[in-house]
Amino acid sequence: MTPFDAELNGDTLREECGVFGIMQHPDAAALTVLGLHALQHRGQEAAGIVSFDGRQFHTERHVGLIGDQFSDSSVIERLKGERAIGHTRYSTAGDTGLRNVQPLFAEFAGGGFAVGHNGNLTNARTLQRALQEKGSIFQSNSDTETIIHLIATSRKVALIDRLIDALLQIEGAYAIVALSEKKLIGCRDPLGVRPLVLGRLDDAYILASETCALDIIGADYVRDIEPGELVIITEDGLESQWPFAPARPRFCVFEYVYFARPDSVVDGRNVYTVRKQIGAELARESPVEADIVVPVPDSGTPAAIGYAQAAGLPFELGIIRNHYVGRTFIEPTDAIRHMGVKLKHNPNQHLLKGKRVVLIDDSIVRGTTSLKIVEMVRNAGAAEVHMRIASPPTRNSCFYGVDTPEKTKLLASRMSVEDMAAHIKVDSLAFLSMDGLYRAAGEEGRNPVRPQYCDACFSGEYPTRLTDQQALESETTVSLLAEAG
Amino acid sequence: MTPFDAELNGDTLREECGVFGIMQHPDAAALTVLGLHALQHRGQEAAGIVSFDGRQFHTERHVGLIGDQFSDSSVIERLKGERAIGHTRYSTAGDTGLRNVQPLFAEFAGGGFAVGHNGNLTNARTLQRALQEKGSIFQSNSDTETIIHLIATSRKVALIDRLIDALLQIEGAYAIVALSEKKLIGCRDPLGVRPLVLGRLDDAYILASETCALDIIGADYVRDIEPGELVIITEDGLESQWPFAPARPRFCVFEYVYFARPDSVVDGRNVYTVRKQIGAELARESPVEADIVVPVPDSGTPAAIGYAQAAGLPFELGIIRNHYVGRTFIEPTDAIRHMGVKLKHNPNQHLLKGKRVVLIDDSIVRGTTSLKIVEMVRNAGAAEVHMRIASPPTRNSCFYGVDTPEKTKLLASRMSVEDMAAHIKVDSLAFLSMDGLYRAAGEEGRNPVRPQYCDACFSGEYPTRLTDQQALESETTVSLLAEAG
Amino acid sequence: MTPFDAELNGDTLREECGVFGIMQHPDAAALTVLGLHALQHRGQEAAGIVSFDGRQFHTERHVGLIGDQFSDSSVIERLKGERAIGHTRYSTAGDTGLRNVQPLFAEFAGGGFAVGHNGNLTNARTLQRALQEKGSIFQSNSDTETIIHLIATSRKVALIDRLIDALLQIEGAYAIVALSEKKLIGCRDPLGVRPLVLGRLDDAYILASETCALDIIGADYVRDIEPGELVIITEDGLESQWPFAPARPRFCVFEYVYFARPDSVVDGRNVYTVRKQIGAELARESPVEADIVVPVPDSGTPAAIGYAQAAGLPFELGIIRNHYVGRTFIEPTDAIRHMGVKLKHNPNQHLLKGKRVVLIDDSIVRGTTSLKIVEMVRNAGAAEVHMRIASPPTRNSCFYGVDTPEKTKLLASRMSVEDMAAHIKVDSLAFLSMDGLYRAAGEEGRNPVRPQYCDACFSGEYPTRLTDQQALESETTVSLLAEAG
Amino acid sequence: MTPFDAELNGDTLREECGVFGIMQHPDAAALTVLGLHALQHRGQEAAGIVSFDGRQFHTERHVGLIGDQFSDSSVIERLKGERAIGHTRYSTAGDTGLRNVQPLFAEFAGGGFAVGHNGNLTNARTLQRALQEKGSIFQSNSDTETIIHLIATSRKVALIDRLIDALLQIEGAYAIVALSEKKLIGCRDPLGVRPLVLGRLDDAYILASETCALDIIGADYVRDIEPGELVIITEDGLESQWPFAPARPRFCVFEYVYFARPDSVVDGRNVYTVRKQIGAELARESPVEADIVVPVPDSGTPAAIGYAQAAGLPFELGIIRNHYVGRTFIEPTDAIRHMGVKLKHNPNQHLLKGKRVVLIDDSIVRGTTSLKIVEMVRNAGAAEVHMRIASPPTRNSCFYGVDTPEKTKLLASRMSVEDMAAHIKVDSLAFLSMDGLYRAAGEEGRNPVRPQYCDACFSGEYPTRLTDQQALESETTVSLLAEAG
Repeated sequence: MTPFDAELNGDTLREECGVFGIMQHPDAAALTVLGLHALQHRGQEAAGIVSFDGRQFHTERHVGLIGDQFSDSSVIERLKGERAIGHTRYSTAGDTGLRNVQPLFAEFAGGGFAVGHNGNLTNARTLQRALQEKGSIFQSNSDTETIIHLIATSRKVALIDRLIDALLQIEGAYAIVALSEKKLIGCRDPLGVRPLVLGRLDDAYILASETCALDIIGADYVRDIEPGELVIITEDGLESQWPFAPARPRFCVFEYVYFARPDSVVDGRNVYTVRKQIGAELARESPVEADIVVPVPDSGTPAAIGYAQAAGLPFELGIIRNHYVGRTFIEPTDAIRHMGVKLKHNPNQHLLKGKRVVLIDDSIVRGTTSLKIVEMVRNAGAAEVHMRIASPPTRNSCFYGVDTPEKTKLLASRMSVEDMAAHIKVDSLAFLSMDGLYRAAGEEGRNPVRPQYCDACFSGEYPTRLTDQQALESETTVSLLAEAG
Repeated sequence: MTPFDAELNGDTLREECGVFGIMQHPDAAALTVLGLHALQHRGQEAAGIVSFDGRQFHTERHVGLIGDQFSDSSVIERLKGERAIGHTRYSTAGDTGLRNVQPLFAEFAGGGFAVGHNGNLTNARTLQRALQEKGSIFQSNSDTETIIHLIATSRKVALIDRLIDALLQIEGAYAIVALSEKKLIGCRDPLGVRPLVLGRLDDAYILASETCALDIIGADYVRDIEPGELVIITEDGLESQWPFAPARPRFCVFEYVYFARPDSVVDGRNVYTVRKQIGAELARESPVEADIVVPVPDSGTPAAIGYAQAAGLPFELGIIRNHYVGRTFIEPTDAIRHMGVKLKHNPNQHLLKGKRVVLIDDSIVRGTTSLKIVEMVRNAGAAEVHMRIASPPTRNSCFYGVDTPEKTKLLASRMSVEDMAAHIKVDSLAFLSMDGLYRAAGEEGRNPVRPQYCDACFSGEYPTRLTDQQALESETTVSLLAEAG
Repeated sequence: MTPFDAELNGDTLREECGVFGIMQHPDAAALTVLGLHALQHRGQEAAGIVSFDGRQFHTERHVGLIGDQFSDSSVIERLKGERAIGHTRYSTAGDTGLRNVQPLFAEFAGGGFAVGHNGNLTNARTLQRALQEKGSIFQSNSDTETIIHLIATSRKVALIDRLIDALLQIEGAYAIVALSEKKLIGCRDPLGVRPLVLGRLDDAYILASETCALDIIGADYVRDIEPGELVIITEDGLESQWPFAPARPRFCVFEYVYFARPDSVVDGRNVYTVRKQIGAELARESPVEADIVVPVPDSGTPAAIGYAQAAGLPFELGIIRNHYVGRTFIEPTDAIRHMGVKLKHNPNQHLLKGKRVVLIDDSIVRGTTSLKIVEMVRNAGAAEVHMRIASPPTRNSCFYGVDTPEKTKLLASRMSVEDMAAHIKVDSLAFLSMDGLYRAAGEEGRNPVRPQYCDACFSGEYPTRLTDQQALESETTVSLLAEAG
Repeated sequence: MTPFDAELNGDTLREECGVFGIMQHPDAAALTVLGLHALQHRGQEAAGIVSFDGRQFHTERHVGLIGDQFSDSSVIERLKGERAIGHTRYSTAGDTGLRNVQPLFAEFAGGGFAVGHNGNLTNARTLQRALQEKGSIFQSNSDTETIIHLIATSRKVALIDRLIDALLQIEGAYAIVALSEKKLIGCRDPLGVRPLVLGRLDDAYILASETCALDIIGADYVRDIEPGELVIITEDGLESQWPFAPARPRFCVFEYVYFARPDSVVDGRNVYTVRKQIGAELARESPVEADIVVPVPDSGTPAAIGYAQAAGLPFELGIIRNHYVGRTFIEPTDAIRHMGVKLKHNPNQHLLKGKRVVLIDDSIVRGTTSLKIVEMVRNAGAAEVHMRIASPPTRNSCFYGVDTPEKTKLLASRMSVEDMAAHIKVDSLAFLSMDGLYRAAGEEGRNPVRPQYCDACFSGEYPTRLTDQQALESETTVSLLAEAG
């Protein structure tokens, strides 16, 4: 399943954003458009670009695909200047939609400032309330606006000092790009949960969520921005600051499993290679006597190739994906909906008939998609269906920029693996082990004391405080008590 | 390459249409929408549906994807009735766009009549001129309108007789669906160049270009409409007529190579299976010492899997495709265009570096795409690039419903295979042989006297007269002479 | 009441069209846009322009005001060439809207031909049926398309002969402008019911429904096209033909009462002057002891000025009109609708309180507007309301290009003047006499044997056959009999 | 000239806003739509409505006419609740447009708050800078946002106290309507420059800029909100506060001359009556031997009627106005523009020929329109043209909510009346005297020590401080000095 498919099914883990920035290139806006296009899988519903032309900032924010909304030459021409930052995201519906599209821009006493980020602050609402009480007026619900108000109300003088002042107050996971009149700024949170890479094209520095955004414009990959690093790029070059207390990195392991594009290098590793290795580990841990290995396209494909190669079984396209889904497809009527319509996937009956099938998917969220896919494969005549999942069971919500259902809706938090197998009606079901996943990602295994990655969605071990979440839970508790009284 | 990719590169073979029809189902319009969605690969830019509710015909014609334009419940509600036909197509640009979107509808003295077709008439302009001279006024350039005027001016009385009168005058390749107040009608040309299948869902009969349009709504595949068969479906059932002189079938072999969806069964064979077999034949005919087999996604993928299995080489996703292209992507500026921007494909450098690569694509049209892809793979560090093409060289234009460049722009009509290899800069290049293609499609080889398929794009042997084309050529000759005089 | 107001109230007489044509001017399209803008009161919902650039025809047809839809420079640039015709009309709703927007254009064997007309054919449906039986396919319901099919199927050779062939078959009222590759053509029906004037701007000839379309571009008024005259304008000049049998002219007298713009000269007389004279006649025929004369704005204004001057009473703006109505205003809710909302008119209470008011309107159609206006004036405190109408009672439908309600819905066909007065709740009500109207229009009175104008809406004496109408009535009779049987 | 005409000519005095509010009516939103429709002449390009349904605020803001953008039942249905405020305005172009549309809404710690106003603050930018320095972030340029930030940062606790705190800091002219969860609030500045009236419909209280917004919905006029009065309307009724130091009222006299609708009562007087009286004063002050009195429609019409009656001359419609201008009319080409195209006005040649004409307009701004109109009347054959202006010469910019050109562009600030007469090419030109204007508005004359109205645009005597303006001028001075240094 790709993010897009999953979303259509309401059975979804959605990365919330991709970011891009470029300093000193005559085609800054056009390259930002292309970079965002390469990052479209990180957020497909809205995007924005802010450029600076030496005198003035220019902003374009649109709901829709980059390729539909930003490719017109008039849009690019309006984004004058040699510096730009861009952001692509899932948008919320309705009137408030455009207000939440990043980058956000504010005019400070010291000049204009634009900022966009990938990730999620875990104390944004707590900070927001404190700011409102002092007179700040919020236009959106975005965490980014919280950062902007923190900068605006800081008592420091220099813009960078005000930004650092703000960063020291926020908690959570973030990869930030920002643009002031003189500087392109990038920053990863102290644990480096979200990715951010540094690239170079001729004399221009580039910041991007993944290397695929460098590849599309032929830029070179220089290095990753380090966890906790603040890079400040000016006409004179690049300089780093380390405003945070030192911490052990905890990169999001799910970027390897599902979010990042297979051709990207993130946190030092090629995603396709990790995914094939995941498939190989899975084959070793959970072998099965079968005729063919079939991926749930497209996200299960690399792991399925790895599984097939390791198991010595043929890899086959047993499920065909329809890419022409459109952004607005509504299933027509209730009658139709219950016919088991196959809008996005169709099994290849001719191939599946009578076969023992190993079906590879990246994860199980609510289980509704798996149930549908398995039924489809069975109806196509498969003799046996063995589901192998390219990650451990997803049992916990993510608070670091991935839009997960609440814990109670995650199938793995409600059932044992055996019950899940019965629920989705497979002959067997197996998940990759936590150690298997860490091995595929280049470790010897998970260090239980100091885990090398953020794996909270599997393990429930959150590497930061969850201030808002705890406030919410204590409020709920209070109100429950109140009701009881 | 998929049709969509190819089109964006202006390096393209485009199927012009998909058709669908359904008789006696309460959700006729909704099912037609879904059927057309499954046929979207046969025409992605415009679509139309006409329904009949027992008293009145209803028409909706829109430019855009089915999923964007027809999925709204209000659209479906306006298409009242238990009978409908639909059509999906490439649209022409500008003002005339919508006028050319099918199905066309006309009010005859005897009642309303809607018709859509897949294919191309080879004597449409000749007929059009004759009709205009007698006072017919044309609103569009579509062949379909020619058929409508032939029906309107026929001296027969019954509608079916008028339709047959029209069919006997037209030449070329076509699969027609039509709807009158009492009948759903389907017809394949005498040679059966274009596909048309018969399906059934509960009590409803269905006509569709491919079986994937039956699968999506859970309908059963009954049989193919035969070449030269006219099926008339009424409330009382189905009846066949055979208005044409008998002829040997010549199904379009390129449907197997490229057009049809891999999960479809057309003309009796599963497309994915034929494509994998094509890959296997290609491995046998043109083996190469290499490390990995890489498809040009998505259309080269099944043949690449077949090649890899037959050759015992690993199948790898060495090129990643970006599916978020959008329908309106314009490459930003000239400067950018010449940077070799990778809008749709990105090589996986990590995987390709140092490897000897067998690259599989379905065909070479102008060669511009191949040149770009090969360069991309080389720049990613491939040690050797061996291109293997899943069909014979494409040397001739199609006049049967595929939008091919003129012959002089087809790379294979201008160069030998050796020169093509040099032109696209590969270490070796091989095409599938004609006999190899026929073997993959289930024959023992091509019968040179009576070829079993239409393969005019490869062989230049056109199975029908090309009346318009000949008229055009003789006109051109005359006018050249005139200029000379 | 203006046409626009009336329409919003569903209490309406709507002129259906304005036409314009120009031959040999470098700004042909721009001048046509301006001419149509001046004729906007003759049709406000859709417009079209066809130009010819010496090689090719160009068409733009849009729903909406000229000022909104045709003023963009890109629209004008697309309409290349030094010759153009234009048309403005009331459009019908829905899908068929744009298809009915004129001018219509057809490609004949002998070349392209565009035509638009103001008026209505009284045998269009009869002709349409005959044409359909011979194989003509209609795309619209417009009379204009009937003319085009008559030309297309004519057996004459020269285009002008084919046009005359068509004109000799049609009945009714029309002012036609047409454009072929070589000619701008104008024609008024034999009775000259609808207006058409000839103008000149530098070397360019112009045709237009009214002189206000000449004034706007500073063109000179040359003369009226005569009833029954066919003018053919080429690069070499203007030539007239008289294809019809001679007949006494019957210009539409309602053009003076209501349709034409007050600043226009039509059929030789200035409209404002005739309207003021109507007011004066009305004052003489139906005086009343009163304090002020108040028009129903804007169409009652000139007659009110004439009445006030003749009666020696003060003319006052007792009702204020809101011109910002917008084209899509929908009264919000049923609750609101019944509050007597004054969207378009508001009485000036301060002025009306305690006054004896002479209220002047141009006509009474269904009576709903009058009822509302009178109630409004009474609620504002008027002591007495005396309604004076600037035309005789409207008792009959028009079949010559004015969209009148059926006879049974016309208040004056259902009631005596006394009953009407009671119905609309006035202290007194008087209509202008037929002779008074003819006197205001420059005659000594109505010639009862050979009336000088078409006044069918008042008198019921239709100056042409009503072929379609009679066919319809006999059909209705038959079907009633059938029901009775 | 109407505001609309003037604007098209760039020769304009534009009122910036109309406001409306209603408390406790089931059709609150629909009535607000109607009220704004009646106030459309005070701002025609954008409008907004905020409603409150007891739990939630709802906002709709659109660019365009009320009748086009707000009349759809779905818009009204989204504006749930029995309380609403609305605002209509001139919008600024481009991206920022919608952000500046009022009412603005903010979520304070104490709950939601919406506010809209008519008028202009003269110290908004000064306040804005001070707020920004303390960390407030502005989203728009509107004065209204300044008020909102003042409320947000106030240290008072109760919302009303915070609002008063804000009001005491602002300078200028304003009529405010605001909506909190419990209250509908109205306020006029201490001098009462802008109008605001109180109305009642059943149990609902209404606030509106003019009485015509009460008339349209059949509401009763209760009284004017007093200068400096703050009314607070709750479910329990209406209560007034007087937060400001007492001051002598200075109502804007130009509301009588031009802005307000003739049927409205503002500041206690009927506008039509004042305008007719202005015409009568003008006839007395500046009589002329002439044949007819002709208004420049529509704004000159009431004064022309008054002039004609007082002078015993016939009032005639010598200039016809085309109301179908459309909102987007662009004059087609330069060539056309210089032809003297008459898009909006056409002289009635038949009437004007040979006549001595008194031409009445409300004011002269830049003079471009007058020049054009006079030329038009002369070209139509008028023997003499005597221009009479229904106000004193406009020599100064307004800083109280009317968008005037800068002083240097006002014709009357650059020329004597004699030179103006020569410039616009009239036989004679006269303006109403200041005392004449005051007499028409019910005074004995202008009290030179304590003028009864704000007449700054004529006299240059501004009744409040112009803080921003003075800051701007001193900045300019400083920078000029700097340059000199």
